[in-house]
Amino acid sequence: MTTASALHPIDLLIHARWVIPVEPRGVVLENHALAIQQGCILDLIPSADADQRYHATATVRLEDHVLIPGLINLHTHAAMALMRGFADDLPLMRWLQERIWPAEGAHMSPDFVRDGTLLGAAEMLRGGITCFQDMYFYPEAAAEAAIEAGIRAVLGIVTLEFPTRYASDADDYLTKGLAARDRYRQEATIDFTLAPHAPYTVSDRTFERIVTLSAQLDLPIHLHLHETRSEIEESIKIHGVRPIERLHQLRVIGPDLIAAHAVHLDPSEIDLLATQGCHLAHCPTSNMKLASGIAPIADALAHGINIGLGTDGCASNNRLDLFQEMRHAALLGKVTSGDAAALQPHDVLRMATLNGATALGLEGLTGSLIPGKQADLCAIRLDEWMVKPLFDPASHLIYVAGRENVSDVWVNGIRRVANGQLVNIDHSKLSSIASLWQNRLMS
Amino acid sequence: MTTASALHPIDLLIHARWVIPVEPRGVVLENHALAIQQGCILDLIPSADADQRYHATATVRLEDHVLIPGLINLHTHAAMALMRGFADDLPLMRWLQERIWPAEGAHMSPDFVRDGTLLGAAEMLRGGITCFQDMYFYPEAAAEAAIEAGIRAVLGIVTLEFPTRYASDADDYLTKGLAARDRYRQEATIDFTLAPHAPYTVSDRTFERIVTLSAQLDLPIHLHLHETRSEIEESIKIHGVRPIERLHQLRVIGPDLIAAHAVHLDPSEIDLLATQGCHLAHCPTSNMKLASGIAPIADALAHGINIGLGTDGCASNNRLDLFQEMRHAALLGKVTSGDAAALQPHDVLRMATLNGATALGLEGLTGSLIPGKQADLCAIRLDEWMVKPLFDPASHLIYVAGRENVSDVWVNGIRRVANGQLVNIDHSKLSSIASLWQNRLMS
Repeated sequence: MTTASALHPIDLLIHARWVIPVEPRGVVLENHALAIQQGCILDLIPSADADQRYHATATVRLEDHVLIPGLINLHTHAAMALMRGFADDLPLMRWLQERIWPAEGAHMSPDFVRDGTLLGAAEMLRGGITCFQDMYFYPEAAAEAAIEAGIRAVLGIVTLEFPTRYASDADDYLTKGLAARDRYRQEATIDFTLAPHAPYTVSDRTFERIVTLSAQLDLPIHLHLHETRSEIEESIKIHGVRPIERLHQLRVIGPDLIAAHAVHLDPSEIDLLATQGCHLAHCPTSNMKLASGIAPIADALAHGINIGLGTDGCASNNRLDLFQEMRHAALLGKVTSGDAAALQPHDVLRMATLNGATALGLEGLTGSLIPGKQADLCAIRLDEWMVKPLFDPASHLIYVAGRENVSDVWVNGIRRVANGQLVNIDHSKLSSIASLWQNRLMS
Repeated sequence: MTTASALHPIDLLIHARWVIPVEPRGVVLENHALAIQQGCILDLIPSADADQRYHATATVRLEDHVLIPGLINLHTHAAMALMRGFADDLPLMRWLQERIWPAEGAHMSPDFVRDGTLLGAAEMLRGGITCFQDMYFYPEAAAEAAIEAGIRAVLGIVTLEFPTRYASDADDYLTKGLAARDRYRQEATIDFTLAPHAPYTVSDRTFERIVTLSAQLDLPIHLHLHETRSEIEESIKIHGVRPIERLHQLRVIGPDLIAAHAVHLDPSEIDLLATQGCHLAHCPTSNMKLASGIAPIADALAHGINIGLGTDGCASNNRLDLFQEMRHAALLGKVTSGDAAALQPHDVLRMATLNGATALGLEGLTGSLIPGKQADLCAIRLDEWMVKPLFDPASHLIYVAGRENVSDVWVNGIRRVANGQLVNIDHSKLSSIASLWQNRLMS
C-alpha cells in the first residue's frame, strides 16, 4: 500500500477523460493525468497510476473533457478587436485605405493598443488560445495587456516606411520596437519578432537591415506575404519580380521567416519555401472574407512546409477564434485539393498547436503535452447533448465543438479560464472598453 | 391618455433592441415590438407605440437582442444526428458505400428515425432554426419527432430504386410516403415534398411518375443534384447527358424543383435553372467536408435563382447549424467570386430565411416578419463582451455571432427556446438517445 509520505509532492494534477498530447501524432489517451510542477509538465500517465505516484496541492478532474495543448494564434493584430465588424465586405487594399488606416490615423494610441489587446487577449484565452503572435503599433502597450491577461505573446517590432501616430519612418519603428524588446526581455511570457509589415510597405534597404538584425539578435521575421494578386502584380511592376523572389534576393526567405497568408504560391515558390525552411501562418477566414484567395495548404503541407494557423485581426474575420480557423483549414483544405482525406483532424490540431510553436522557435516550451514543456493547456467539455454522439474526440474538436465548449485554460500552469469563465479579467471591464472605443470610432 | 380598456388585447408582445424583418431588404429597426395573436404576426411597430396600442397577455423584452425570422434549413437528413462524427474524411461515394449505407442497413428503423429526428430537431431549435426540409426514411417517425419538438418540418417522400429496411422498390417508397402524407395532412406544422434521392439512384420511369404526382398533388420535388463531378461523369456514361439535361428532358426542371448542392454548374445550366425558376439548397459545409466542390453561388444569385441554405445531414457536416452555413456561404461566396462585396450580410440572412420559405412554397407563412405570417422567430443576444464592439447587428449575425448566442425561439408563436434553454424537450432524454445509438452504432 502506498502511503501519503511516499507520494511525490506536486502543484497540480489534472485528470481528463481524454488527452491528445499532439506528440506523438494521432494519439488519444483515455483517463490520463497531467502532473504539473512550477508551471511545467512533469508527467503524463494513466489517472490510476497518477493517484499512486503524486500528492498534488490542487487536483482538477475533467470527467467529460478532452485536454489538448493551448492553441497558438500565429498571426493576429490583437488590438483590432476594437474594430470588430467596423469594415466589412471590402477587398484588402480598399479595406485598409478607406476604413482601417483612416480610423487608426484618428485613434491610434498606447491606450487603444492596451485596451484592444486586453479585449483580444481575453477573447483568445476564453477560446483556448494560450499564445499569440501579434503585429501592431505600441508593442509595450500590447505587452502590458498580455501580462495583465496572463497570455503568452510574441510581439512584432512592426516596421513600415510611412509615418503613423506611432513612428515616423522605418528607423524610428525599429528603434521604438527594439526598445520595447529591451524593456520586456526578462518577462517569461513576452517575446518579440521583427515584423516588417509587407513587401509593399517596406523598402529593400529596410529589409536588409532587418535581415541583419534577425541574425544578430536571433529574432524571427514575421510579415504578410503574397496575400493578394494585386500585391504580386504591383511588385512585378515596381521591382520586376514577384515578392517572394524579391525577398529571396534580399535573403529574407529562410528558416527565420514566418509568412502570413501565402495565398498565391506557384509550384516553384512552394518548393523554395520548403527548401528554405520557411514557416507559414495560414489565415483561412480572413483570406475568404477579404476575397484574397485560398492558400494551397494541402500542397504546401505535402512539401513539408511547417504551417500554423492565424485568425488575422478581428476587423477582417471577425472573431479571434482558432476553433473556427481549424474547421476552416480542414474544410478548405479538403475542397481545394479535391481530397476529402486531406487535412485530417490530428493534422489540423497540430497546425493550431505544435506547428505554431515551431514557427516561433518555442517548440521546446509549448505546443504539445510533453514533460519538460510549460503547462499551456486547453480543456474542451464534450458532455453536452448538442455535441453528442461522440465517436472520436479529435474529430469533434475540428468538426463539432466550438470555442463555446472550452471549459478551462492554463498558461504556464496558471488557470486563466475556469468552467468557461475568465479567472483574472473582469467581464464588465471588457464591456466598458468595447463600448468606449465603439463610441469613439463611430464619432 | 390611453386607458387599458382602449388597448387592443393580444397574446404576446415582444420588444427587441433591433429587429431585422428581412422584408424589406436591408432594414434594421431599433426598439421595435412584434405583436402576436393566435400564433400570427399582427403588427411590427416602434416599442413606444406598441405600449400605447396593445395589451398583451405576455410581454417579452429583448433588451440587447436582435430579433429575426426563424431560420429555415432547406436540406437536411435530421435523423443522421445519431451519426454525428461517425464517418469523416471520405468523399461522397465512399462515405455512402463504406460507412453510411452499411450502418443504415444494420440499424434503420422507425425508432432510429424518431430518436434521431428528435435529437436533430432539438439541435436545430436551439440554434434558431424553426423549419427544416428533410429527406430520410420512415417520415411518419420523423413527423412524430418534429411534432414532439415543436418545429416546422417539410418531410421528403424519399424514393430510391433499391431496397432498404424501409421499402422494397420505388413504388413501395412512394406508396409508404404518400400514406404518411395522408396521415399528417391536418397537421399545421408538417408538410411533404416528393424526394427522389438523386439522379444516380432514381430511374427515368420513377422520375416521370414523380413529375405527374407533383402536378396532381401540388408538391415540390426535393433531390440531390450535381453534387459531385463523378455523378456527372456517370450520367454521361449511362445516359449520354449530364444529370440536369436528363432531368430537363424528363420535365423535372421547373419551379417545383428544390435542388440540393448544385455544386457543378456550367453557365448554360445556371441559365436553365434561372429560366425555369428552380430553387437551390446551398450546403457549403457539407460540400467542403466531402470535397465535392464549391457551388457558384454569387453567379447563380446574380442570375436571379432563389437560393436557400442547408446543413445537409449531420454525418457530413457535423453540426445542424445555420449560423455556420450563413458564415460559410458568405465567406465562400466572396472568395470564389473574387469579390469581397459579394454575399453581404442581408443577402445571406435572406438566404437562410425567406429564400428557404419561398423554395418550399411557404413564403406566405414564414421566412420574414410581415404581419399575417406565423410568428416563427429567433432572438440573438448581443450584449456579451465576446461579441463587442458592435457597429452593425446584421454584420454580427454573419461574421461574429454563433448559435451559442441564440437566446429565444418561437414557432407559430409558441416559445420553444427561452434564455438559451429548450422549453419542452428534456436534455437528459436527448443525451440518453445519443448514448443509446452511439453504443449500437459502435457495436
